[in-house]
Amino acid sequence: MGQNLAQKLISEHLVSGGMTPGTEIGLRIDQTLTQDATGTMVMLELEALGLDQVRTELSAQYVDHNLLQTDEKNPEDHLFLLSAAQRFGLWFSKPGNGVSHPVHQARFGRPGASLAGSDSHTCAAGALGMLAIGVGGLEVAMAMAGDPLYLAMPRIWGVELTGKLPDWVSAKDVILELLRRHDVKGGTGRIIEYYGPGLAHLTAMDRHVIANMGAELGATTSVFPADGAVRDYLRAVGRPQDFRELAADPDAGYDDTETIDLSGLEPLIARPSSPGNVVPVREAAGEEVFQVVVGSSANPGLRDFAVVAEILAGRQTHPQVSVDVNPTSRELLQDLAKGGWLFQLIQAGARIHQAGCMGCIGMGQAPATGRNSLRTVPRNFPGRSGTREDAVWLCSPETAAAAALTGVITDPRDLGRDLGLGYPRPDLPGRYSSNTAMLQPPLPRDQARDVELVKGANISSLPDFDPLPDELELPVLLKMGDNVSTDEIMPAGAQVLPYRSNIPKIAEFSFSRIAADYPERARAAGAGHAVVGGENYGQGSSREHAVIAPRYLGLRVVVARSFARIHWQNLANFGILPLEFARPADYNALRPGSVLAFRGLRALRPGTDIGAELDGQAIVLKHRLSERQVAMVLAGGRIPYTAARR
Amino acid sequence: MGQNLAQKLISEHLVSGGMTPGTEIGLRIDQTLTQDATGTMVMLELEALGLDQVRTELSAQYVDHNLLQTDEKNPEDHLFLLSAAQRFGLWFSKPGNGVSHPVHQARFGRPGASLAGSDSHTCAAGALGMLAIGVGGLEVAMAMAGDPLYLAMPRIWGVELTGKLPDWVSAKDVILELLRRHDVKGGTGRIIEYYGPGLAHLTAMDRHVIANMGAELGATTSVFPADGAVRDYLRAVGRPQDFRELAADPDAGYDDTETIDLSGLEPLIARPSSPGNVVPVREAAGEEVFQVVVGSSANPGLRDFAVVAEILAGRQTHPQVSVDVNPTSRELLQDLAKGGWLFQLIQAGARIHQAGCMGCIGMGQAPATGRNSLRTVPRNFPGRSGTREDAVWLCSPETAAAAALTGVITDPRDLGRDLGLGYPRPDLPGRYSSNTAMLQPPLPRDQARDVELVKGANISSLPDFDPLPDELELPVLLKMGDNVSTDEIMPAGAQVLPYRSNIPKIAEFSFSRIAADYPERARAAGAGHAVVGGENYGQGSSREHAVIAPRYLGLRVVVARSFARIHWQNLANFGILPLEFARPADYNALRPGSVLAFRGLRALRPGTDIGAELDGQAIVLKHRLSERQVAMVLAGGRIPYTAARR
Repeated sequence: MGQNLAQKLISEHLVSGGMTPGTEIGLRIDQTLTQDATGTMVMLELEALGLDQVRTELSAQYVDHNLLQTDEKNPEDHLFLLSAAQRFGLWFSKPGNGVSHPVHQARFGRPGASLAGSDSHTCAAGALGMLAIGVGGLEVAMAMAGDPLYLAMPRIWGVELTGKLPDWVSAKDVILELLRRHDVKGGTGRIIEYYGPGLAHLTAMDRHVIANMGAELGATTSVFPADGAVRDYLRAVGRPQDFRELAADPDAGYDDTETIDLSGLEPLIARPSSPGNVVPVREAAGEEVFQVVVGSSANPGLRDFAVVAEILAGRQTHPQVSVDVNPTSRELLQDLAKGGWLFQLIQAGARIHQAGCMGCIGMGQAPATGRNSLRTVPRNFPGRSGTREDAVWLCSPETAAAAALTGVITDPRDLGRDLGLGYPRPDLPGRYSSNTAMLQPPLPRDQARDVELVKGANISSLPDFDPLPDELELPVLLKMGDNVSTDEIMPAGAQVLPYRSNIPKIAEFSFSRIAADYPERARAAGAGHAVVGGENYGQGSSREHAVIAPRYLGLRVVVARSFARIHWQNLANFGILPLEFARPADYNALRPGSVLAFRGLRALRPGTDIGAELDGQAIVLKHRLSERQVAMVLAGGRIPYTAARR
Repeated sequence: MGQNLAQKLISEHLVSGGMTPGTEIGLRIDQTLTQDATGTMVMLELEALGLDQVRTELSAQYVDHNLLQTDEKNPEDHLFLLSAAQRFGLWFSKPGNGVSHPVHQARFGRPGASLAGSDSHTCAAGALGMLAIGVGGLEVAMAMAGDPLYLAMPRIWGVELTGKLPDWVSAKDVILELLRRHDVKGGTGRIIEYYGPGLAHLTAMDRHVIANMGAELGATTSVFPADGAVRDYLRAVGRPQDFRELAADPDAGYDDTETIDLSGLEPLIARPSSPGNVVPVREAAGEEVFQVVVGSSANPGLRDFAVVAEILAGRQTHPQVSVDVNPTSRELLQDLAKGGWLFQLIQAGARIHQAGCMGCIGMGQAPATGRNSLRTVPRNFPGRSGTREDAVWLCSPETAAAAALTGVITDPRDLGRDLGLGYPRPDLPGRYSSNTAMLQPPLPRDQARDVELVKGANISSLPDFDPLPDELELPVLLKMGDNVSTDEIMPAGAQVLPYRSNIPKIAEFSFSRIAADYPERARAAGAGHAVVGGENYGQGSSREHAVIAPRYLGLRVVVARSFARIHWQNLANFGILPLEFARPADYNALRPGSVLAFRGLRALRPGTDIGAELDGQAIVLKHRLSERQVAMVLAGGRIPYTAARR
């Protein structure tokens, strides 16, 4: 039997391990991507590792998250990142150049390359036939230093696409359909590989939409073949020479399979406050809408904005609705201006914001409490918008535009009936604008050595991480339910993210959406504590602050029913023991206030269970750490582990 | 002798008092303008006054300051303002429609009309021959309720303009020249009236630039004749019928006179951190620049953006410089798009922000600490940008664009020499875009009555204000120097402004840039306290929070060497006694910790001095309150005063 595409990509980059699902493999990383919210920590890690020059083919640092600059902290972080990019040999994408994923794909995407990114939506580049994986910042730092990227070999989930999307239904509805079927942990431990005749009607940017939100299914990544659509895309961005045809072998098989008939889909929408709460738009029709946000890495293509512009063209947005446009990039803005779509959006009453992530990461455009906000972004976890009790829905550009006109949730197919509007098919240019002046190349090595890191007052070094003690007696401070996201463990947004380079300060926001007094109780607990999670614990963003900050406050052990992949890795990387229940029912026995006692932790080995005492009663817990990870956790985390080996 | 234009405008609106400089006059107000930062308080005041319907010809509520929406507070204030505008019969300009002053001028500006606005730059409309005065919010609320606007009759300062501006020198340099000559209190107690042959070369939008920054001289307002340039402007905005020719009588005289030869001007720049620190650009040339901000009510015209676009066209902004563009309005954005200038700005690397005040009011784009930021905005008071130790310079669009290209402060005339660039003369349309869909007209009266105010959780009612006691013994908590601005008394910016409808909360920021422990010490002082200021105390923004919040914390008396007009009025309006020294040298005797004791305050009368004891020594203080104002201060402020009379 031949190989599927995911297996081929893994084989080409495999440096350790076999390809048995669940066992640890090491992958050679060709490219890395960091953004500013996670990147300052990565640069501090490179400094701590003493790196002189990145060892990847290409590493790029983007500034797209913290663009609001309400005080000096964000612009000072931008200057720090510029100096660090120059010092360590990275490309630097200036604030305003655009969102990392679409910009990286346009400028550096190459079929067959591996990409590790400290952003959970790094997987979007799977649209071009790349092996693109979102991980914690320290994993990316190690990849830049030349180490392999370690992960558990995923199962390969073949999703066959047949048919063709009807009018008013677009790529976002495809991934919403998969979320409707499988919910937010349906993809954990898997790579989603798309194939089949339905691909013929999906452009590379349509595939970017689908691959991007594979993160919402918990998938390790998503992969599309590099076919004619990818060839067209690379020609359109001015890099036809980087095309290489890639596909599964004709006789390839998959660990799991599934089919989506595109012609049977209808407009879908995810209700607040989970990407998995998907229903047909018509079932929610009529609900009042106060805000519509268009943009983000989930719908970043020129088409996604142009289709909104053509629906709004010559009309006015509803008086009650604020229509906010987050352009993807400076290049996209150029094309929107050239094509007249920017004018249409402005004329219809849209608020045009600077190019970047903005509302998607709670950096502006927060909605009013409980007022419905329809967004083309990938996530609607509680409070992620910046508003504690928000009501954010996820939908396609078509569905967003319909609500912008009517002021209520509206099936966009009704626009044809009610406004006599034909389905817009924007006339996209064969060649996109290319403007790389805000993407600064690495300095020559001899100049790079002279660059000093520019650290503002808000940039503090990493705290020290002590080894795992042999014995621990830990009060359980929190017990949480299923699908807790890293947005709840460590919020992003305009109030928190400016402290991303300052662990003692950002630690005060740990678990603030779940229990505001957590930092206080953690400090009171003194010699360490544990927390308990449900299924899919730590889904969502890859941010390491969700482990570094609680660790700083004394978190030593997390016991969960199951973990989301990146957060599980991050816990191990920073010396927190991620444990699961040998008997699922024991989850019920653990309560806030329980005490978990461990003895003989220094004898931890891969594949063996861990005996502990829960309020004096014996309990069996298990772990999935590899030999390498066990050594790392015992050392206190990957940084002290690496330092000791050098 | 005939009348000058200012006298004519005042005569036409005079309802009480004579026209002797320094005595109180009452003016009939035709139009009012409120923005969101001051407007929520005004709407709460209208509610407290029990107003049913505004009694002006026209009142408009703009949302232009607090657009960032980092949480639910700002969007909830927007919904509150919309509901209040509908309830009380105001026009409502939606978030994203644009900056109040240029939008108001374009849609409602009318030669000969009087305008009171709760924003210090309301004076910009003097460009059209309006009598446009920035005052505290309560003054505007009373004007909406049909009361006259009271102020001290100003001296009329005739400024004759001769000659014609050289290439690379523009309207901003004219007002910077006046600031260079007279500094930030050179215009206090005066209306600046421009006349002379130099006007022939200044468009209505050029005059808007000059009139706007009359506020920085401390002037009551600025006035230009309504001549051919105003006729052209009203035709260009689609309202030729609103033109009416207005000018001084040929034999008119002025209380003070001055001449500026436009042909002798050169590019000027105000150094950090006062609009009065003006030097020729060439004297500062070569200083490193990290940010350039273009926009705001000080340079809002299409020309001001187009000239920057044409200087940058086909070039790239300097790698080190963030170039931030704050478009004035949705209509301006339409014209920038139509004319191709928006494309040029994007292509050159500018970050395009939503239409609004933004960086000018510290709502985004704060610079890094101590890194030079060149801005076309009107003010650079310390910390106003959002960064505590900022380095903001004020300049023309030409000077800003030059630095955007070179990365250092650059005399724009050098661009001709160094880049072979001719002075751009953008080809402006004869008719500007007109799009009023985001400017919602008042509801019909019968519908308005049914509207309920939509108050988010952050909107609290006004505190009560008790009458002035007969005896006061007040510790002096702060002693300040000259030219302290309301930005220092009560900061604006993204961290503070969201609390503008919540006095107990915003009070915690009072004087925070001067003495962080002021709120604590004020509370400790218990039964009231005083503060001492130098010359021109309370210059800058009209915000009432700079008096309501300290009053809430117990401020009863401010003694200063002199006051800025609006702040002085605001103090009286909220029952704080604004006193000056009978003997200027007594300023030196007052120290923090001194105790000021007053007896017999209930016997306060207009025109009489006030005897007090300073640490047991007699001291004589004076006040400038009219009979009306004395009664108001004794009652505890204008709200209890008005309530008692109804």
